[in-house]
Amino acid sequence: MKIAVFQFNPIVGDFDANAEKIIATAENAKAQGADLLITPAMSLSGYPLHDLLWHQDFVQRTQQAIEKIKQLRDIAVIIGLPYQENAVFYHVAMVIENGQILAIHKKSVLSSHHPLNEYRYFSQGNEATVLTYQNHRFALLIEEELQNAQQLALIRQQGAQAVISMHASPFYPDVYKERMQQAQQTALPVIYANLCGGSNEWVFDGTSFATDAQGKITFQAAFCQESLDFVVWEEEKGFSGSLKPIPQSFEAQSYTAIVMSLRDYIQRCGFQRVCLGLSGGMDSALVLALAVDAIGAEHCEVLLMPSQYTAQLSNTAATQMAEHLGVRYESIPISPIFDSFKNALSHRFAGLAEDVTEENLQARIRGTLLMALSNKTGALLLTTGNKSEVAMGYATLYGDMNGGFAPIKDLFKTQVYAVARWLNREKQDEIIPQSIIDRPPSAELRPNQTDQDSLPEYAVLDAMLQALMEENISANTLIQRGFSADEVQKTVRLLRISEYKRQQGAIGPIISRRAFDNHWQMPINHRFQ
Amino acid sequence: MKIAVFQFNPIVGDFDANAEKIIATAENAKAQGADLLITPAMSLSGYPLHDLLWHQDFVQRTQQAIEKIKQLRDIAVIIGLPYQENAVFYHVAMVIENGQILAIHKKSVLSSHHPLNEYRYFSQGNEATVLTYQNHRFALLIEEELQNAQQLALIRQQGAQAVISMHASPFYPDVYKERMQQAQQTALPVIYANLCGGSNEWVFDGTSFATDAQGKITFQAAFCQESLDFVVWEEEKGFSGSLKPIPQSFEAQSYTAIVMSLRDYIQRCGFQRVCLGLSGGMDSALVLALAVDAIGAEHCEVLLMPSQYTAQLSNTAATQMAEHLGVRYESIPISPIFDSFKNALSHRFAGLAEDVTEENLQARIRGTLLMALSNKTGALLLTTGNKSEVAMGYATLYGDMNGGFAPIKDLFKTQVYAVARWLNREKQDEIIPQSIIDRPPSAELRPNQTDQDSLPEYAVLDAMLQALMEENISANTLIQRGFSADEVQKTVRLLRISEYKRQQGAIGPIISRRAFDNHWQMPINHRFQ
Repeated sequence: MKIAVFQFNPIVGDFDANAEKIIATAENAKAQGADLLITPAMSLSGYPLHDLLWHQDFVQRTQQAIEKIKQLRDIAVIIGLPYQENAVFYHVAMVIENGQILAIHKKSVLSSHHPLNEYRYFSQGNEATVLTYQNHRFALLIEEELQNAQQLALIRQQGAQAVISMHASPFYPDVYKERMQQAQQTALPVIYANLCGGSNEWVFDGTSFATDAQGKITFQAAFCQESLDFVVWEEEKGFSGSLKPIPQSFEAQSYTAIVMSLRDYIQRCGFQRVCLGLSGGMDSALVLALAVDAIGAEHCEVLLMPSQYTAQLSNTAATQMAEHLGVRYESIPISPIFDSFKNALSHRFAGLAEDVTEENLQARIRGTLLMALSNKTGALLLTTGNKSEVAMGYATLYGDMNGGFAPIKDLFKTQVYAVARWLNREKQDEIIPQSIIDRPPSAELRPNQTDQDSLPEYAVLDAMLQALMEENISANTLIQRGFSADEVQKTVRLLRISEYKRQQGAIGPIISRRAFDNHWQMPINHRFQ
Repeated sequence: MKIAVFQFNPIVGDFDANAEKIIATAENAKAQGADLLITPAMSLSGYPLHDLLWHQDFVQRTQQAIEKIKQLRDIAVIIGLPYQENAVFYHVAMVIENGQILAIHKKSVLSSHHPLNEYRYFSQGNEATVLTYQNHRFALLIEEELQNAQQLALIRQQGAQAVISMHASPFYPDVYKERMQQAQQTALPVIYANLCGGSNEWVFDGTSFATDAQGKITFQAAFCQESLDFVVWEEEKGFSGSLKPIPQSFEAQSYTAIVMSLRDYIQRCGFQRVCLGLSGGMDSALVLALAVDAIGAEHCEVLLMPSQYTAQLSNTAATQMAEHLGVRYESIPISPIFDSFKNALSHRFAGLAEDVTEENLQARIRGTLLMALSNKTGALLLTTGNKSEVAMGYATLYGDMNGGFAPIKDLFKTQVYAVARWLNREKQDEIIPQSIIDRPPSAELRPNQTDQDSLPEYAVLDAMLQALMEENISANTLIQRGFSADEVQKTVRLLRISEYKRQQGAIGPIISRRAFDNHWQMPINHRFQ
């Protein structure tokens, strides 16, 4: 029996387009000899929908899309969607063939975490579902059910020979290995169909797969690409198919995931162009490289906005990069505007010393120039902060934080460097100028400033931040691990007091086990020490 | 039996301070003859805590605070907190007397909605708890349990004579009436102890109460004020006490709730001062009045930032208001800065017509000046957008949206006017200059502009928005209700495309059934029509 696996990148809320894509893909699969098309969780609706689910017309739109899929003949299709019954919603897998709904499986293990608090929307199913199809018995599972002992016991009792498991599983590096282990622990052949694409801050990497009767991975779909693949089912052998390569390194996975996320975000927000400030530093250089990969150099534009504190190297490196990639650029010195602000404020600020106010002013002038370019040209402004910076609040709110999407906000600074070096190797080209890789990081907001005037060394800082975020550990534990008490206290304090900035920051692709978007939910003010 | 009800305003995460306050209050209550002190849900920890609960030291801090309370003698205390048992957390009510824990009730009905997705943090309790205290049988309930048929049946089976119900119930207008009905539906005497205070965007209004054996409200605590009150328990009669007044009007409740929220936010973030831009329009006028009430005129400062499009009336009204209230003000014309930006951009913008870019530039210059004042003086910048504006995106991101707290973001424009008129009547003083109340609203970003050039009449707009937000209805339903198709389509579209602005906006007090903070969770891009 030939089964098609459609690793789908649906559009949130676009029932018509998603249904049409599923139908066209089913026709294609049928033409290639498949009897059954499997799609991921929430394939019909896109995911996550959030409160769109409560819209008055939501159920009707769902029904219309189901009716369309019912028109298909001679191929069964399994779709995922939110489905209403007796005035409550369930997260379901639905099997449709020749106008009939053969089965509706209601997810019985809800997620309180990401990508969504399912308890806000869904009631819990309380049954297992084993579909008899062409005399084979396939259990239908959704997401966490694959690891749920009770569900697994129930499907065995009901004679399941294999599992069709539908997922909207977000990416983080090497998560595919964990998914494979989960499938193998069922001790049944499994098809794991995962969603693909960038849905606002969420990144679904696909990487669908299947196992044979021995739990061996016999089928592997592409990483971060929509695709239609085929597997063969044989009762004795389980599933078999072909293996597409998965990028192995952290850097390759992260870069690929961000490019997909960025492209989908730009296009789904209706933009054709992006712009950003190219400072001659590492963060904006990597963001420009990502944007060029996502939508092409001809759709990108950058501003250089030098001040008296900008090193000549910054201008040279930024210009070199823009010219090498073929990106439109323009240099707008900010000093005249800076002077006009200082002049306007001179009466109120008379007698007060210069301080961080004037540093922030420069960043806000740049942010305002970039937004003017964005407004005038219809380009989406990308903001270039990395995770270390976002954690420490080492950025100016309404200044360099301006922008609609933050492509590298979930990469620590050391990871930004690693990805940049990987990119130059991978492309065998100096995409990121070596001079940018080699120079010490600086905000260039006062004379001879470097990041390390204000922050611990990035290698140290990032190790502390990762532990604080992913392990929820205390300052004392960090100190016991050998970090200096001063640096620990400073890091913990900055992480805490910059919460207000983060809550006004742009979203960006979630590509770690604990990102600031969604995974990190903190009150702005509190006194927990 | 005399029972003390402590309508407490705890500080999130400050276990030491909260425990000390509970202990001091218990001593005070004991001195006044009480045998038992009841506090609201989450009184020991403050609420909502979000991910602080996962911090490595959280359990230890909780235990230390419990140990302190155990030192109390000759008065029983009921506290609310997150409590860990067998490596999972429960939301509990804990009864402590003379060093002993008499009971721990674990909340059995979790909330998936506000103020918190409890499923993210808590396991569900599965028992009812009836405390025998001085031969009386009091059931302990937490929040939603008060309305849960199963819990109510269980406590009756266990012989409960009355209910002690602990709450962290957020404010919206007249919600106290619903709470009272919920208590009355139990057909038992109830003490309803509610949290008080502003916890970031959350507003807890207190308004604790108790009922007698007939379900009559016999005790009522203050609205939006921390307080210690006493009720008497008699088996035949139920609870009795005294009734403090609750403001009856929407305007009075909303204004009082915002002032408390604003004061708590300012102080708990560690600010002594606030600043804002005073435009001569209604929104900033009301925000200034609120700020003066919250922390005093001497801690407030405003900037007037006129342009060529600013009416003389705006300057006059703003100056009049600042002088009348005794608020420091300064006028900084923005034209020279505007010119310097236009000059800097002239090369890139050559041949392109003026458009919304230049309007936004003015707003961003003002936002940057205000942030400079905030940075230089350490004052918290308040942003002045109302709910209609936030809904429509009728504000400039990184411009007039700048600020750390948005006091009136949950008041529609028509409600802003109503509150302003009420305030002048209530204070018998022209706090808000009549000229501001009488003039048509305008952003003053181009010649002779008024809000109604771009938006439907506010009375119409607000009615549409309230229906869209609180009823999740479709455009068609709005049209069937008699709204014009053009205005409906425009409103639905603007509401949808401004999601990216809202997600970067400041938090503000949640004072409605559906606020944009927390209650409204939408993807930035989607194609649900």
